[in-house]
Amino acid sequence: MSTQRIAIVGPGLLGGSIALALRGRPGFKTAIWARRPEAVEELKAIAIAGYAATNLPRVVRDADLIVLCTPVGAMPALAREIAATAKPGAVVTDVGSVKGALVVELGAIFAGKMRFVGSHPMAGSDQSGLRAARADLFAGAVCVVTPAADSDTAAVATVSAFWEALGCQVCQFSPSAHDEAVALISHFPHLLAATLLNVVAEQNAEAFGVCGPGFRDTTRVAGGAPEMWAEILASNSSAVRAALDATIAKLGEIGNILARDPSDPAILDFLTHAKTRRDALRLPPS
Amino acid sequence: MSTQRIAIVGPGLLGGSIALALRGRPGFKTAIWARRPEAVEELKAIAIAGYAATNLPRVVRDADLIVLCTPVGAMPALAREIAATAKPGAVVTDVGSVKGALVVELGAIFAGKMRFVGSHPMAGSDQSGLRAARADLFAGAVCVVTPAADSDTAAVATVSAFWEALGCQVCQFSPSAHDEAVALISHFPHLLAATLLNVVAEQNAEAFGVCGPGFRDTTRVAGGAPEMWAEILASNSSAVRAALDATIAKLGEIGNILARDPSDPAILDFLTHAKTRRDALRLPPS
Repeated sequence: MSTQRIAIVGPGLLGGSIALALRGRPGFKTAIWARRPEAVEELKAIAIAGYAATNLPRVVRDADLIVLCTPVGAMPALAREIAATAKPGAVVTDVGSVKGALVVELGAIFAGKMRFVGSHPMAGSDQSGLRAARADLFAGAVCVVTPAADSDTAAVATVSAFWEALGCQVCQFSPSAHDEAVALISHFPHLLAATLLNVVAEQNAEAFGVCGPGFRDTTRVAGGAPEMWAEILASNSSAVRAALDATIAKLGEIGNILARDPSDPAILDFLTHAKTRRDALRLPPS
Repeated sequence: MSTQRIAIVGPGLLGGSIALALRGRPGFKTAIWARRPEAVEELKAIAIAGYAATNLPRVVRDADLIVLCTPVGAMPALAREIAATAKPGAVVTDVGSVKGALVVELGAIFAGKMRFVGSHPMAGSDQSGLRAARADLFAGAVCVVTPAADSDTAAVATVSAFWEALGCQVCQFSPSAHDEAVALISHFPHLLAATLLNVVAEQNAEAFGVCGPGFRDTTRVAGGAPEMWAEILASNSSAVRAALDATIAKLGEIGNILARDPSDPAILDFLTHAKTRRDALRLPPS
């Protein structure tokens, strides 16, 4: 197999982890773009990629596969610059957490020039930035590839093979099915963890003093970057609201049962069903 | 310091971890009670304590400190047997997750015979039983000691020193203040994790297929033993309901904001407050 040239656009947790995972791997040549010159100096100092620069056309011009790893809000402007300068027919993907509107917008920018297919590797952290990047971030993680109706089949295969090479289990969802699914298992749970922290703070902040490992884990995600998560919640708000409404309804039912008879066997059933579902999850390695 | 004789009543996760933490430690002699002869054989096979038996009077009769580590429902009957056979003035504690009614009940059983003081080490796991026991389970964990108004001061000091010897950070709450605090940071969060799993199962079980590390951690506690948790929720139901009602109200507020304007800066504020609180937590080691 010939060498695949990968351009990584954005040196944060995900972009940095892709570069670390590919460093020294035969079959790959990497280039990485960062907006700030100081970030490029840092990338060069740790020799994370074959080439690092603030000049986007130079980073992407020879690339076979371009991976957008910036915050979602920055992607369209970068995509326009890439569409004007990258190799015709190059494959482009992104790592944004919400796919519906983004896939439409990026797909239109690259149409007739490059071949765009969205991705979402389920491999975040409450830490962000290059310092949190890890070569094994993707090992065992699920990566959702989200082709649109008109996506190029070969490009979908290229993007899927790329994530598999990084150790991901790849699955395919349409952009809208992806957004509904991740609202339930990522976006709304983030909001729920934040809600729990804010409820404890208002009800009885002294309770924070007796936290055990359960509360540590239940609330971990709420340590993530608020700006990024506010953007995610805003762009997937209808699916998040559906999860929120269903949760309010379910909590109301349970509250009524507890009020009527705290020993009602329905509570044990509820916990047993939840445990059965939890035990059946295919989870990423800790 | 003379040797302290510790009787551990119940060889599950907590009792087993206490025995493992004390094994070979100078200054301690341990005995452990299990209900089933097969469990005693297992305890002897791994030489977890100086003495192991199904005969409760023999296990507790020389003890300076007796630690009740069985499920809460089994404690009163065992306490009556201990009250009839242990050394007068011996100190007794327990590890139950709800303290209010239990402290009253156990306190009455031991009154005038032994000196009872409740404890709650915040060091659980979603795993249970002796196989999950670890010598370092208590290292860095908070242990709440819950004296009643009439508790013996020296006994409170003995119990506190015991948990500190196991590596705990000890704090004191009244039994009712304990129950309110742990409803917020343990009991209700458990119910919330179970609710989230049941909501996802009903709304779109396919979403379970794309779980990342966030969902793994957010729902971890829901893997715990349903019987134990149903008992905990039943015995602390009014404080759990207060947390549940506050959470429904808060989710309703956030849902309204999202419905009106998903980009409302109030969402970013909400997430920022939650992150500030999360970052300030003193957490047990991972």
